[in-house]
Amino acid sequence: MTITLYCFAESGNAYKAALALELAGVPWEARFVDFFNGETRAPEFRALNPMGEVPVLDTGTETLTQSGVIQHWVMETTGKLGGNTPAEARDILRWTIFDNQKVSGMAGPLRFLMNFIPEDKRDPGAIGFLSGRLKASLTVLDGELASRDWLATDHLTCADISCAGYLYYPEPFSFDRADYPNIDRWLDRIAATPGWKHPYDLLPAPTVGQDTREQT
Amino acid sequence: MTITLYCFAESGNAYKAALALELAGVPWEARFVDFFNGETRAPEFRALNPMGEVPVLDTGTETLTQSGVIQHWVMETTGKLGGNTPAEARDILRWTIFDNQKVSGMAGPLRFLMNFIPEDKRDPGAIGFLSGRLKASLTVLDGELASRDWLATDHLTCADISCAGYLYYPEPFSFDRADYPNIDRWLDRIAATPGWKHPYDLLPAPTVGQDTREQT
Repeated sequence: MTITLYCFAESGNAYKAALALELAGVPWEARFVDFFNGETRAPEFRALNPMGEVPVLDTGTETLTQSGVIQHWVMETTGKLGGNTPAEARDILRWTIFDNQKVSGMAGPLRFLMNFIPEDKRDPGAIGFLSGRLKASLTVLDGELASRDWLATDHLTCADISCAGYLYYPEPFSFDRADYPNIDRWLDRIAATPGWKHPYDLLPAPTVGQDTREQT
Repeated sequence: MTITLYCFAESGNAYKAALALELAGVPWEARFVDFFNGETRAPEFRALNPMGEVPVLDTGTETLTQSGVIQHWVMETTGKLGGNTPAEARDILRWTIFDNQKVSGMAGPLRFLMNFIPEDKRDPGAIGFLSGRLKASLTVLDGELASRDWLATDHLTCADISCAGYLYYPEPFSFDRADYPNIDRWLDRIAATPGWKHPYDLLPAPTVGQDTREQT
């Protein structure tokens, strides 16, 4: 039974799902989604995921969407990257929701607006708003990481993978590791995990010549 | 053992937690948090929740934050408002995360910017961005509700409570029920549930004379 992840390299949400699969040792195949040419808006993709987003995981028996749900499935199925107690599981969920709303939820659109649309369409009000909100969330994260190595337990969990996902991307989105020393060390800690890969090494990108990243 | 919810009436995220407690029949007490006078930024509150947000639930043995986590605890503890299978539980989580990122995650800040700060500080770029994103999310929600009564199962669950929470508030935030007929009927369906209460009836507000809502 093949496990297929619908994804593309620029999507931090896809990366959060892919990295969880990879670090838990789940065999999976990538199916490239051509987001920049409109594939997620096409009827075929909407039939797969009405939310019109990657990641989508086809487990062979079930179609799962939302990176947090895919991570939850990985934890349940493999027993890895999760908590040891119900309280720890709740804490992982807490950070996952915080991430989706306030870290990825701000960093994702902010990075998109600052990099992947034409310069004359980049609204400074929206960028300023998202930058301010992201800064507040990263300050919370940095404060929490001052006194511990991992967010939810004494080991790497999906809470860390979720909150860290977008922070490995090189494009500017008003995030500088130097401003957040505890986040900086934590990102290095995660990246030192055996099997860790950078999003642009783990996820598929368009073949050369079709790469719209270069054109934006 | 007293179950205490730290909350205030204007917070849709607090409402999502409170309504789940209420409809599951959990006895709970409200502890008013004076958000508009800075209580969530005070060191005492940050010690309770480093994320600086309501809702916070003190279960008597555990402190829980994030509305989705509190809802998860309600489903686990009472066996109510949840799914019947692991697949349904995953679908509830899917809608909860979608809500936190794309419905509440946009409607919350948008309503704040449009109502609770001085007019000369309301950035049209940020408001335009959030309105556009909210509209896209509500269109997904309305489409899904065209063919079913409830989001994740054949009955009301925390998925519905999460996605609907902000949509009962009367302040303008570029949401008009007339634009979304399926959402409109679904909000009425939820409100017809025995025990349902409007956020301004369920949650505590400042006493008269201290009400900063009137001043903003």
